Amino acid sequence: MDLYFSPLACSMATRIALYEAGADATFLEVDPKTKHVRQDNADFFAINPLGLVPTLRTDDGEILTENAAILQYVANRFSDTGISASSERERTRLHQWLCFIGTELHKALFINLLDSKAPAEVHAYTLKKSLSRLDYLNTYLEGREFLLDHFTVADAYLVTVLNWSRATPQIDFANWPNVKDYLSRLRKRPSITRALTEEAALFQAEQERHKAA
Amino acid sequence: MDLYFSPLACSMATRIALYEAGADATFLEVDPKTKHVRQDNADFFAINPLGLVPTLRTDDGEILTENAAILQYVANRFSDTGISASSERERTRLHQWLCFIGTELHKALFINLLDSKAPAEVHAYTLKKSLSRLDYLNTYLEGREFLLDHFTVADAYLVTVLNWSRATPQIDFANWPNVKDYLSRLRKRPSITRALTEEAALFQAEQERHKAA
Repeated sequence: MDLYFSPLACSMATRIALYEAGADATFLEVDPKTKHVRQDNADFFAINPLGLVPTLRTDDGEILTENAAILQYVANRFSDTGISASSERERTRLHQWLCFIGTELHKALFINLLDSKAPAEVHAYTLKKSLSRLDYLNTYLEGREFLLDHFTVADAYLVTVLNWSRATPQIDFANWPNVKDYLSRLRKRPSITRALTEEAALFQAEQERHKAA
Repeated sequence: MDLYFSPLACSMATRIALYEAGADATFLEVDPKTKHVRQDNADFFAINPLGLVPTLRTDDGEILTENAAILQYVANRFSDTGISASSERERTRLHQWLCFIGTELHKALFINLLDSKAPAEVHAYTLKKSLSRLDYLNTYLEGREFLLDHFTVADAYLVTVLNWSRATPQIDFANWPNVKDYLSRLRKRPSITRALTEEAALFQAEQERHKAA
């Protein structure tokens, strides 16, 4: 399968899931400014009209979009590797967390803060409306190692989103110690260390390309 | 099962799904201002710490949160009634649409526009960033009756979100005729007509209560 990604974007969750599963995949880098695929200069809008990563091409040639849907697909495809839920009951919890991370953290809290060109009013409004989501997460993580009873694709997504705090000085995890500990702990997990190291280098190169352009 | 809802909120999608499935359920109304359950004056935060509808109590007494997760649960629970996907391949598409509606339409486009107290800059930024999502939806709906090949919980969610356009004058579906036709057509579907009629009356009563308070 082919994963279209941009360095340190939410597509990193799928990379982590694939590393955890030991799955074979081709990683195709999309430049977030030009929306071209770096490997062959293809127009990414022709692959996903929304221009959003992650986009996954399955072994059957189907194009899948939307992060939570791709993570559910990968979890099901490699369910024997333990990255999925272990029961129907847990599957519902997995859906719940994927939805919470996607709507309340990714879209409602982080995405606007990551846009340094957004008006100050947008940043202030975002913080006022959504910062309390971290209280909820902090309470939930008390005494827990993972979101479910073992590492799943939901953790891959959560780490990816929380990692954006490096670029959002308005969010200081010192205020949410369980979230801070969770992130520190998960960053040391081999699949995550590997993904972060590789994508941080690609991100750095991307920034230098943009500066030179 | 018990569905905690607020009139015309995104919880209406689950009501529609339950009506389609002919499922028994108790509907418990949460006042969005006081966050109390109208039937027994219970503190809704004690049921869902986020204070968000929909929240579902299953027949086993479990509390489920997050709209897309609840819709997947209801779809699986009543899969013999046709509101779910009809194959594994379609299930992935169902997840994709639930995710798109939840993140790109509900959270990124509509929710801020529905907040009349949000700063003008927030409304302008929201429209600039997310209005194009309706172009994508309009193109997809060309020649289609439903999001998948039959009515599913994803349509229940999409109708619920698109119906908010009645309160967002910035969005005029005349610009997206396939979206407009889809909404007009689906509003005539019995389960949807019933849900809209019932919840519109409850919404009206809620507005009058708030005005009198």
